[in-house]
Amino acid sequence: MIVTLTTDFGLRDGYVAAMKGAMLRLAPSLHMVDVTHEVPAQDVMSAGFTLRQVVPHFPEGTVHLVVVDPGVGTARRAIAARFEVAGDTHVFVGPDNGVLALIAGTERVTEAVELPVAAEASATFHGRDVFGPAAARLAAGAMLSDVGSPIDGVTPLHWPQPRTDEQGVFGMILHVDQFGNCVTNITREQVERHSDGRPFKCYAGSAVFRTHRDTYGEVGAGDPLTLFGSTDLLEIAVNRGHASRLLSVERGDTVHLVFDAPPRPEPLASELATNA
Amino acid sequence: MIVTLTTDFGLRDGYVAAMKGAMLRLAPSLHMVDVTHEVPAQDVMSAGFTLRQVVPHFPEGTVHLVVVDPGVGTARRAIAARFEVAGDTHVFVGPDNGVLALIAGTERVTEAVELPVAAEASATFHGRDVFGPAAARLAAGAMLSDVGSPIDGVTPLHWPQPRTDEQGVFGMILHVDQFGNCVTNITREQVERHSDGRPFKCYAGSAVFRTHRDTYGEVGAGDPLTLFGSTDLLEIAVNRGHASRLLSVERGDTVHLVFDAPPRPEPLASELATNA
Amino acid sequence: MIVTLTTDFGLRDGYVAAMKGAMLRLAPSLHMVDVTHEVPAQDVMSAGFTLRQVVPHFPEGTVHLVVVDPGVGTARRAIAARFEVAGDTHVFVGPDNGVLALIAGTERVTEAVELPVAAEASATFHGRDVFGPAAARLAAGAMLSDVGSPIDGVTPLHWPQPRTDEQGVFGMILHVDQFGNCVTNITREQVERHSDGRPFKCYAGSAVFRTHRDTYGEVGAGDPLTLFGSTDLLEIAVNRGHASRLLSVERGDTVHLVFDAPPRPEPLASELATNA
Repeated sequence: MIVTLTTDFGLRDGYVAAMKGAMLRLAPSLHMVDVTHEVPAQDVMSAGFTLRQVVPHFPEGTVHLVVVDPGVGTARRAIAARFEVAGDTHVFVGPDNGVLALIAGTERVTEAVELPVAAEASATFHGRDVFGPAAARLAAGAMLSDVGSPIDGVTPLHWPQPRTDEQGVFGMILHVDQFGNCVTNITREQVERHSDGRPFKCYAGSAVFRTHRDTYGEVGAGDPLTLFGSTDLLEIAVNRGHASRLLSVERGDTVHLVFDAPPRPEPLASELATNA
Repeated sequence: MIVTLTTDFGLRDGYVAAMKGAMLRLAPSLHMVDVTHEVPAQDVMSAGFTLRQVVPHFPEGTVHLVVVDPGVGTARRAIAARFEVAGDTHVFVGPDNGVLALIAGTERVTEAVELPVAAEASATFHGRDVFGPAAARLAAGAMLSDVGSPIDGVTPLHWPQPRTDEQGVFGMILHVDQFGNCVTNITREQVERHSDGRPFKCYAGSAVFRTHRDTYGEVGAGDPLTLFGSTDLLEIAVNRGHASRLLSVERGDTVHLVFDAPPRPEPLASELATNA
Repeated sequence: MIVTLTTDFGLRDGYVAAMKGAMLRLAPSLHMVDVTHEVPAQDVMSAGFTLRQVVPHFPEGTVHLVVVDPGVGTARRAIAARFEVAGDTHVFVGPDNGVLALIAGTERVTEAVELPVAAEASATFHGRDVFGPAAARLAAGAMLSDVGSPIDGVTPLHWPQPRTDEQGVFGMILHVDQFGNCVTNITREQVERHSDGRPFKCYAGSAVFRTHRDTYGEVGAGDPLTLFGSTDLLEIAVNRGHASRLLSVERGDTVHLVFDAPPRPEPLASELATNA
C-alpha cells in the first residue's frame, strides 16, 4: 500500500496535490511517501540517480511513481513494471524514458506493461490522469495485467562508466547533492580491485589531494577528502564545506584517482653487487 | 478523514508542524495531504487559483484547510463551509477572505458557519489554534453546526474576466507556474465560441506567434506556443523553456488573441460579371 | 505511532526518502510527519529552536526524530530519550549534541539510552542506519531498553539569556523566520515582571520604536512593532513587511527594551511648601 512519488513538479504549484487527489479517489487509504518533487526540470538522469539510492530501502512490494517526463504528449510509452532490487520485488510506474533502467538496470525488470492513455486524459498532465491512477490501483492490489498490456522490455539508459587500469581510475561527477558533495561514477569495488591497497591522489577541479577517509569528520574543517558514500560510490567532499563550490567542480567534470607506484621490490644481493 | 493543507507558512520554520500536531491531538489517524506551504506571503488569489486546480480531484468529503490570512488578528471572520464542485461535496476551513469564492464560487457554497476564536488562542497563529483544530474535528466526523454558528454567506472575490468579441479575446496572465508557464484567465470555451474555428495570433509580452497545439512537445525546443492546460485555461508556454522569462511576461500582463479574418465568401457569378 | 522528522537533509536529494524507507521496512504503517528538512546545515540551535515551538502541540507519546548531526562519524553518542513537556511524555531520537536540551531542558529528560551503531552502518548516514530504525521501533511499541543501553544524562546546550533590570531588558535575536519576523530570547514573563506595566521603547538595528501590540494587524502596513509570538517570546515584526531586512537586523543582533521612567510620585504638601 506504499507509493513513493518522484517528480519535477516542484512544491509551489498544485500539480503534486492534484495527482495525489486523483490517487486518493481510487485508493483512499494509500500511504504516499514523497521522495522529491524538486528533480531539475525534465532531468531523467537526476531522477534515476536519486531513486537508485532510495528504492533498496523501501519494503518489498512498494510502488514507485516517477513522473519526470520530457516526452509528455509525444509517442513515448507510459509503462508499469515489476523489477527486483536486493532480493525484493518493487513496482515502477512512469514514462518509459530510461529512468527505470537507471534505477535498477533493464536486466532486473521481470514484467512490464504499457499503460493505456484514455482519450479524455489531459495531454500535458499524465501524472494526474495516467500514471498516478495506475500507481494507486497497483498499490491497492491490482496486477500489472489489470492496468496495461504486456510489452517485451523497457528503454535502456546508461551512465558513463569510468576507465580503470593499474595506474588509476578515470571517472566523472554524476551528481552534486545539496551539501555540495560530489558523487562520482567510481565504485568502491573498482578502487579496491585496481589499487590493490595502494593509496591514491585525487585530481578534481582545482584540487589535488590524497586524503581518503571513512567519514567527513576525520579531516579538519575546510579540508577536502574522498570517501565512499552511502551507495558505495566515491564522493568528493569538504568537511563542513561545500565541495562543489570550494573545488570548482560540477556535474560532468572529470575525476582522476592516481595510485601510488607499487613499493619497489627489495633489490637482490647480486644486483647490488653489479651496481656497485 | 482526508484533510488537505494550503498555507503561506513555508517549510523552513515549525509553523506547519505545530499546526499538524494540534490537529493530530484531536484526530490521531488524520490523513493530511500538503497542497503547498509556499503560497506567496498573504497572496489570497494565488492560493485560490492553486486550489481551483486541485480540489476537484480529491474525493467527496475531503476537508480543505487554507490558511493564507493577511487579516489574522483583525475582524475578518474564521469560517468553515460546505461547497460543491463537479458533483462532489467538499468542506473548506479558513479565513473568510474570498479564497473560498475563488476556489468554488460563492454560489456553490451550501452551508457556512463562523468559527469561535477562544480567548486563549494565539492572536497571531489561528492556523494552529482555530482553523487546524476545526478541520481536524470536521474530518473526524463533526458537523458544521458542531464547530461554529451559521452565517448567511461568504465573502466574494473575483478575478478579472477577459473581454471577448468577434475579433479576439483580450485577457491577462493570472499565474506563472514554476516551469514559467503562464496561465491566463481565458477559457477554452471562450476561445472556441468566439473564434468559430479560425486560427489566431497570440500577442504576449515581446512575442507574437500563432502556434496553438495540444501539447508542449509539438513545437521545437525553445519555440513559444499556446495550449489549453489541465484546467482548460489558455496557457502560454515555451517547449523546454521558461516562457515567463523568455517572453518577458509576468502575472498581470495582458494577452491578446486576435482571430484571423473569416474566409472571404466565394464571389457570386453576378458580382464577377459586374466587376469585369 | 506518530514520528516527526527534522533534518538538514533538504528536499532535493533522496536522503529523507531513504531514511523513511528504512523506517517503513520496520513499521509499515508508521505515521510520519515532517517538521522540516531545511534546517540550515548542521545548525543544532536552529533545529532545537524550531522543535521547541512544535513538540508541545503533538500528542503524548510522539517520537521526535532529529538528525542534525555535525558529528556524524565521530565519537558523539547516538541516543534515544524520554522527556516531558507540558505534562506529556515524548520520545527523542538523534545525536547527543545538545538539541534535546534546547527542546526540553535536560532536567525534563526522565530516561535515556545510547543506541548501538552496527558495524555495517554507513559511516556517513546514521539517519538511515541508526536513528531512523530506532525511531521506527520505538513508535511501533519498543521500550527504550529494547533499543539501547542506559546512560546517565544527555549533553546540555543553552542559549544566551537576556540581562534584565528595572531600566529594561537587554536580549538578542535568536531566530529570523521566513517572513522576516525576528524572535528574541526575551520572554513575556521577563518583560511583565520587570516593566511593572510601564511602556517601553525597543532598540533593534536601525530602528527605535515603542509600538507593542497583540497582533501584526494593529499597526499600519510597513510599521514596526513588538509582540509576543506563539511561544511567548518577544518578536520584532513589521506589519506586511520583512522586519529583518527593513530594520537591518539578523540572528545574534542585540535588542534593548528600555522601560519608561516610573511616574513621579505626587509631591507632598510639606515639600510644596518648602519649595515655594
